[in-house]
Amino acid sequence: MSTNLTSFEHKQVIHMLTDLPQKIKKGEAVVCVIGLGRVGLPLGIVLALSGLQVVGIDIDKHKVSNIKSGKMPFYYPVMHGWLQKALSKGAFTASSQPKESIEQCDVIIVTVGTPMGIHYQIDYSQLHFAIREVGEADLTNRAVIVRSTAVPGTMVNIVLPMLKRISGLRPGVDFALAACPERILEGQAHTELYELPEIIGAIDDLSGDIAQELFLKINSKKVILRTTPTAAELAKLFSNIYRYVGFALANEFAIWAEKYGENASEIIRTANDGYPRSRIPKPGFAGGPCLGKDGFLLDNNTTFSSIVSAAWKLNEGIPQHIVASLMGELGSLCGIKIAVLGLAFKANSDDVRLSPSAKLVEILRAYGADVLVHDPNIKETLPITEVLQSPDVVILATNHPAFTDVAASIDKSGCKIIYDVWNMFKPNDFTMAKYMGFGRAK
Amino acid sequence: MSTNLTSFEHKQVIHMLTDLPQKIKKGEAVVCVIGLGRVGLPLGIVLALSGLQVVGIDIDKHKVSNIKSGKMPFYYPVMHGWLQKALSKGAFTASSQPKESIEQCDVIIVTVGTPMGIHYQIDYSQLHFAIREVGEADLTNRAVIVRSTAVPGTMVNIVLPMLKRISGLRPGVDFALAACPERILEGQAHTELYELPEIIGAIDDLSGDIAQELFLKINSKKVILRTTPTAAELAKLFSNIYRYVGFALANEFAIWAEKYGENASEIIRTANDGYPRSRIPKPGFAGGPCLGKDGFLLDNNTTFSSIVSAAWKLNEGIPQHIVASLMGELGSLCGIKIAVLGLAFKANSDDVRLSPSAKLVEILRAYGADVLVHDPNIKETLPITEVLQSPDVVILATNHPAFTDVAASIDKSGCKIIYDVWNMFKPNDFTMAKYMGFGRAK
Repeated sequence: MSTNLTSFEHKQVIHMLTDLPQKIKKGEAVVCVIGLGRVGLPLGIVLALSGLQVVGIDIDKHKVSNIKSGKMPFYYPVMHGWLQKALSKGAFTASSQPKESIEQCDVIIVTVGTPMGIHYQIDYSQLHFAIREVGEADLTNRAVIVRSTAVPGTMVNIVLPMLKRISGLRPGVDFALAACPERILEGQAHTELYELPEIIGAIDDLSGDIAQELFLKINSKKVILRTTPTAAELAKLFSNIYRYVGFALANEFAIWAEKYGENASEIIRTANDGYPRSRIPKPGFAGGPCLGKDGFLLDNNTTFSSIVSAAWKLNEGIPQHIVASLMGELGSLCGIKIAVLGLAFKANSDDVRLSPSAKLVEILRAYGADVLVHDPNIKETLPITEVLQSPDVVILATNHPAFTDVAASIDKSGCKIIYDVWNMFKPNDFTMAKYMGFGRAK
Repeated sequence: MSTNLTSFEHKQVIHMLTDLPQKIKKGEAVVCVIGLGRVGLPLGIVLALSGLQVVGIDIDKHKVSNIKSGKMPFYYPVMHGWLQKALSKGAFTASSQPKESIEQCDVIIVTVGTPMGIHYQIDYSQLHFAIREVGEADLTNRAVIVRSTAVPGTMVNIVLPMLKRISGLRPGVDFALAACPERILEGQAHTELYELPEIIGAIDDLSGDIAQELFLKINSKKVILRTTPTAAELAKLFSNIYRYVGFALANEFAIWAEKYGENASEIIRTANDGYPRSRIPKPGFAGGPCLGKDGFLLDNNTTFSSIVSAAWKLNEGIPQHIVASLMGELGSLCGIKIAVLGLAFKANSDDVRLSPSAKLVEILRAYGADVLVHDPNIKETLPITEVLQSPDVVILATNHPAFTDVAASIDKSGCKIIYDVWNMFKPNDFTMAKYMGFGRAK
């Protein structure tokens, strides 16, 4: 099923960078995507299904070998079928040899991660590694697109000078360069890559034209928004931070509603219903690998800006708030058997990076609770039948749709308390257990 | 043109509170509105034009006499015509005698202000006064609706026990009681009273039915959302605080964009364009009598909650940020002649309560600047021709539509700097002056 890179035909060798937009348009360009994570792999597959030849590059050989044999390295059922289709068409392959792959491609898209390091700084190591590999290849008449989320100014102050120095070539003349930040919801690339507008922050017009042709291959009616590299980086962060602050505010409302003896979810529904100026999100955990860190990027590892800091403190405090609510009910958690349903940071995901549920589990264990975790998408967790064997407390911690039907099983488990972080259930779903929910009157 | 209260026919005396919904529906009920401010007066006029007889009550005799002669006490051109229509129909009158008016009415709507006192506490004096007047009247078979914005729990913990004690009557049996908080944009009552859903937080079902019939008189298709009194109070605050925090975040983004040498308004437009998860507001002043104080109500005069506090600090800091930007350009402001265009807290308003523009003027004067203010809606300010007589700096501080055309006059004024808080103008509107804007690269 796997396709050799060598089977790709480099249909037309171009002699000028200005020919590249046309080559992409004709479907004759070869694209390489560096970093086969949750951003890069779906993008590579979609580009391969859009009429381009794609090489996915990752330094993890085990991952590359799995992908070549048609296996997704993370939970994404739709994309699994699409990967097999792209492989069998011969339009997609994977490699762990950056240098030789890059020189067979016309467009290089960098999608490596920019995670948080242990000092809450942005860890640039993957981006530096990728840029070095790219710079050391012959970039003549090629285009480099950086899709990783980055500190504003990364393209202008880090990527551009680094590529220029390492390659010895002239950006904008010998090679093209643009920042096109990813803005897709994890797990929604199969629809959103087609539908969302694309922000292109290119270093010059030609670079912008090249990046534009690439994304128009996915959908020729895609809305293209062209701006400066730094503005593109900022726009991405603004979108994510806006959402994150909205979630924090909903969580703050939830805590106030509890204090006033009212139910936040119902009040928020009332406040939003038909009111053009309210789009208050639902309360619940807010975190994960994008929203959980993007506030740190905005201010470039210096101090947090005030409102983002307040939002971060609030969202990160929700697991502790829930632990405190349980302790208010039970006294000590020492020796209490707690079943946690859901470990991923959001519904329909298996991603536990910066997941508030994972944080909750750690805190519960720190207080001496005996915590058993089930997540339907994470096979390292226990089966639901096992975690529901006579627990004292059940916590619904991730709003996976699969959990909508488990209220009866929870009720039968004999637990004393069900704590519903997402207000998925109703109090009268439970005949035996006391029902508690985040943002609900106690 | 004025109508005597005595000309109102109390068409049918009801003998039971349960008859009141029907009486309202038939248009035979008389309504009194206590507090003829920006909430109460438009509501009274609209109810009068919706087929009910209305008495507006205010302790300010001068205001009452003006209203009776057809003059609006504040800037609201559309409502001015509607007032005259309601008066000439004989459906509306005004009075400064609460007690005698209340006993001629079936429904009493309390719309008095709950402003902030000098200690940043909510000033309950107007609400207490109104409730006392209402309680001392005979409330038998009457309904009391509180529309003032209040600390959550005000209806249950303050209004209900007070009315019960003073009147000696039984709430829900002898009289009806509901919290129906105002959620209309100042200056938009003439459309929004018809269109917006109404939140009714009644103390019991009958009280809810009565309040519902009242609002359905305005528009029989109005969406009615029924909940508890405290939830209604919270829903109102959630809506306003959500907006206020959104404005703060936009302002934070503006400051970051300045730091990164980019233009916030353009980036926010890019981030929002076609992206379903971004509805980032425009940067600019955020304040005024509603948004500026509602965060204080949520936590009942104790400490501010974290995110609202951060939002408040940010929004209240924008005038100082602008002063600092000007000082960065000019060194000292001492003796600098500054024309400020706009004093109201928002466009199309004459309301200066908690206006950031008014705060800006105070700070500029504190730094020794010679500040001249023009606002087309505030006749106590200077004419625009006078403030534009050779100023050093012009500041566009309120986004009144009238200002869209003044760029040429500003340019001709010979000023050295134009500071555009709202990004209403473009840099190339100005040939002489340096153009600066909030959230723009310097």
